[in-house]
Amino acid sequence: MAKKTTNIVRRFQDKNIKIFALGGLDEVGKNMYCVEVDDELIVIDSGIMFPDSNYGVDYIIPDYTYLKENEDKIVGLFITHGHEDHIGGIPYLLRKVSIPKVYANGIAITLIKNKLSEHRNINANIVEFGDDSIYKFKNFEISFFRTNHSIPDSFGIAIKTRLGYIVHTGDFKFDFTPLVRHTDYGKLTRYAEEGILCLLSDSTNANVASMSASEKKIGESIKSIFSQIKGRIIISTFASNIYRVQQIVEASVKHNRKVIVFGRSMEKTINVSKKLKYINAPEGTFINMREFTQLPPNRVTILSTGSQGEPLAALSRIADGTHKHIKIMEGDTIVFSSSPIPGNQEAVNRTINKLYRAGCNVIINSPLTDTHTSGHASETELKIMLSLTKPKYFVPIHGEYSMLKKHTELAAATGINPNNCFILDNGDVLTINEKKAAVTHKVQSGDIYIDTNNFDIDNQIIRERKILSDDGMVSIIFSSKNNKLNKVPNIISRGFIYVKGSTELMEEIQKKSQDLYETYYRSTKRFNQNHLANYISNALTDFIYEKTEKKPMIVPIFMNY
Amino acid sequence: MAKKTTNIVRRFQDKNIKIFALGGLDEVGKNMYCVEVDDELIVIDSGIMFPDSNYGVDYIIPDYTYLKENEDKIVGLFITHGHEDHIGGIPYLLRKVSIPKVYANGIAITLIKNKLSEHRNINANIVEFGDDSIYKFKNFEISFFRTNHSIPDSFGIAIKTRLGYIVHTGDFKFDFTPLVRHTDYGKLTRYAEEGILCLLSDSTNANVASMSASEKKIGESIKSIFSQIKGRIIISTFASNIYRVQQIVEASVKHNRKVIVFGRSMEKTINVSKKLKYINAPEGTFINMREFTQLPPNRVTILSTGSQGEPLAALSRIADGTHKHIKIMEGDTIVFSSSPIPGNQEAVNRTINKLYRAGCNVIINSPLTDTHTSGHASETELKIMLSLTKPKYFVPIHGEYSMLKKHTELAAATGINPNNCFILDNGDVLTINEKKAAVTHKVQSGDIYIDTNNFDIDNQIIRERKILSDDGMVSIIFSSKNNKLNKVPNIISRGFIYVKGSTELMEEIQKKSQDLYETYYRSTKRFNQNHLANYISNALTDFIYEKTEKKPMIVPIFMNY
Repeated sequence: MAKKTTNIVRRFQDKNIKIFALGGLDEVGKNMYCVEVDDELIVIDSGIMFPDSNYGVDYIIPDYTYLKENEDKIVGLFITHGHEDHIGGIPYLLRKVSIPKVYANGIAITLIKNKLSEHRNINANIVEFGDDSIYKFKNFEISFFRTNHSIPDSFGIAIKTRLGYIVHTGDFKFDFTPLVRHTDYGKLTRYAEEGILCLLSDSTNANVASMSASEKKIGESIKSIFSQIKGRIIISTFASNIYRVQQIVEASVKHNRKVIVFGRSMEKTINVSKKLKYINAPEGTFINMREFTQLPPNRVTILSTGSQGEPLAALSRIADGTHKHIKIMEGDTIVFSSSPIPGNQEAVNRTINKLYRAGCNVIINSPLTDTHTSGHASETELKIMLSLTKPKYFVPIHGEYSMLKKHTELAAATGINPNNCFILDNGDVLTINEKKAAVTHKVQSGDIYIDTNNFDIDNQIIRERKILSDDGMVSIIFSSKNNKLNKVPNIISRGFIYVKGSTELMEEIQKKSQDLYETYYRSTKRFNQNHLANYISNALTDFIYEKTEKKPMIVPIFMNY
Repeated sequence: MAKKTTNIVRRFQDKNIKIFALGGLDEVGKNMYCVEVDDELIVIDSGIMFPDSNYGVDYIIPDYTYLKENEDKIVGLFITHGHEDHIGGIPYLLRKVSIPKVYANGIAITLIKNKLSEHRNINANIVEFGDDSIYKFKNFEISFFRTNHSIPDSFGIAIKTRLGYIVHTGDFKFDFTPLVRHTDYGKLTRYAEEGILCLLSDSTNANVASMSASEKKIGESIKSIFSQIKGRIIISTFASNIYRVQQIVEASVKHNRKVIVFGRSMEKTINVSKKLKYINAPEGTFINMREFTQLPPNRVTILSTGSQGEPLAALSRIADGTHKHIKIMEGDTIVFSSSPIPGNQEAVNRTINKLYRAGCNVIINSPLTDTHTSGHASETELKIMLSLTKPKYFVPIHGEYSMLKKHTELAAATGINPNNCFILDNGDVLTINEKKAAVTHKVQSGDIYIDTNNFDIDNQIIRERKILSDDGMVSIIFSSKNNKLNKVPNIISRGFIYVKGSTELMEEIQKKSQDLYETYYRSTKRFNQNHLANYISNALTDFIYEKTEKKPMIVPIFMNY
């Protein structure tokens, strides 16, 4: 009887709607959200995150174990837009997990294809959804609604279930004077009329008061700034912010400047965007180096990457004086059409200081200059989204805990029952049925470290690099015959201490190492090299810490003859 | 004749006034300014700076070579106030350079003495200057003027020379409603009337518009916040901001709360400040753990360190749930009476997220809450200082290049001849005589790295740690007899690559190492271990880079029998 009940419960549970994230909660980046009903699983986005501190880690992706184990359930990967924190993980995901189709639109498709072409042997079945596409599955009907964001072709995703819509906003803002297209308000309110079961909404700027400025406003500021500059203009923005690039091009055309582009990612997106007609300019607006050298300073705009102070980007090399073509000169004006992403402030400051030092004028985004606006909804816009959609349940997504928390407060302020708001962790499964919603269990989630060469980096490696980074390493080479030392141990260190000034310490370490080895050799009957290595490492770590307050990595090496 | 002329020139030059910094220019920290005339040299402040990225470096101090070489000229070290970036270097300086007297006032003296007591064998002759002290030397007459800053007993220094005053502001702001004492406006204007040759003024907040808020305003905000809180209050600020601590104590007393203090630096400054009567509270305001446990939540204030997210500070441990005494609970309110110092934003965010997650309410400084104000003058205040002092020459100090640059623009706006404004680098000597001022030469300056155990860290060590941190290390142990290999080389790596998943690569490295050794052995007549080590390191670095795009540190070890 017990067994039968369990089966009934399970069958019922299997028809429940499960919502969870494998990345993107309590963090900014590596977005990946899942909706699962019965034997069908939808994946939304597959992003990367950039690490806080380096240790040779280039990006972080989610742990895909759950998807691997439930591969046969996956009906598709749906991409909201083409930013790295939403598409950057696709090659790694597809290498591990078989996914029947990747659904995306417009520029995101081009960016995904470019990305996949840099990896070997990855097959992807990419399908372009349109504004009015509807994909039907047993338990889901999937449709899309246009949003405003800092890259074209950004969409939210609506998943119709037997209990109502699940609406995932993607990254969004409300721009009521957009450059190209409005948010699809009609669709949002239609979903709301039919009934939205659960809203998953972008929390990135939940802690920012009021409204984000319209992209059009920024275009006007840039034009006004350009009107006052007599010398060369060097302007830097995010390569993927194609609207901004178009506005910079327009400001240049208006003020009779030709545009030269530096930085590989900027060149790439401009090429893509020209083809997709997102960048439009009169013939001859974009110039090459030869044409550039023939124009006076007040006839050129230098559009470059490096707005985040990335050491190898064009602007940083210009500031360093190491750029192949552009030498900074007095009278140049540098415009940052960007804001530093958290963690990049110091690098940006370094670049700005170098530019000032070279005699340039530097214009950064501020309430006075308005050279940049965020692509994410702030407080008022989030309340508008909540008011338009009137969801029964609410899950804030995309953001650190404080942002998710603030977003639920905004939701409650718009009238959503606070008990129906769920701040989830990556892996937490929100299960919804006719009667209620609750976090019922956890699926595997976590961080996987990746380096440029696409090697997975083990946690152990990171731990070792951290120790090496702080205090370096000391290697002790023991030479023995039949396990009996036949030489004084050899000490070699790197990144530890200035050896020439520490002869005495090095001799003490040598003496101590020899003592430790000999003590072990004398006292043990069963000589075990692993035991000995542990014994020496531990004792020597303590010994060195007492002398130096440092804990270098101890690497004992045994040469037995 | 030539020789005689040179002597005359030299004698004349020797009477010139030389102004230079050994630290504090194009950076925030390690402040050290010098004024030299003839055979007399005045040193102002001796600070440390905290490093951007770690690599086991705890602080950075200036290169003291110039002071060592001109030891006999030094008449004294004059301290403006007791912050680490002004006094933190004193033990290192005094260990290297003999200085007849260290002049300081009030709490700075206590802090310097505490600091020196943590170091062995340092003799310091510390003299307390008073508000009206004047110290006369052959070429100088030195006096002091009180300023407002975020630690009590902050002073500017006026050096009377034959050409007029050199005024060094120290760190300052203008607080027109100060808690304790006003800036000594009278003295400043008297110097100005007698004639100020050169102003050296604090640029830290030159890029901040308008005025800094008065400390009194912050006290009112804190009281108002306290009036609304029903549960426990945990409040964190800079330990050295004694005015703030006093205001927190006052707010607690007013709202019937007792104060318990956590964090070693906070306990220390409170003890010092009680003795100096900077902290005043009714008997029984400060309580111990036993008393604390007997009070209800609405009767306690927990005052703690950790406002910068420092991992080991009290607040961070409270947020982590690892604090010995304080377990966070729902209903707790955490107040940050501080702003993140550049570079600390991410660490502070992590702490805030943990606190929210634990169910606390968190109040940070913002235009709405006003829980903190800077101790540094912003734009308007800097213009007030320039207007009060009307110097002939101007040198912006304390700050990154962009701040120094902005400060000279402010100086020009107040009427100082832009040609008389000098943005110096550390080491640049500004030489002033009757007729003019110019940067004439450079003295040695630079960064010296220090770790907690007071070891100097060589640049080579930092370079090694950087390599180890990014890509780890690979050690190859060659065992030979008469220099002829008698074993396959042994490969040991740390922090490089996940070894178990890379057997093939490790075997290739082993094979390549053996080839390299044998090629060298066969082709050379004069076997030289250093040559061989270089040859193997270079060739193996290339080999591994080609395979992995990594550049681990290569450590060849030779065991010859």
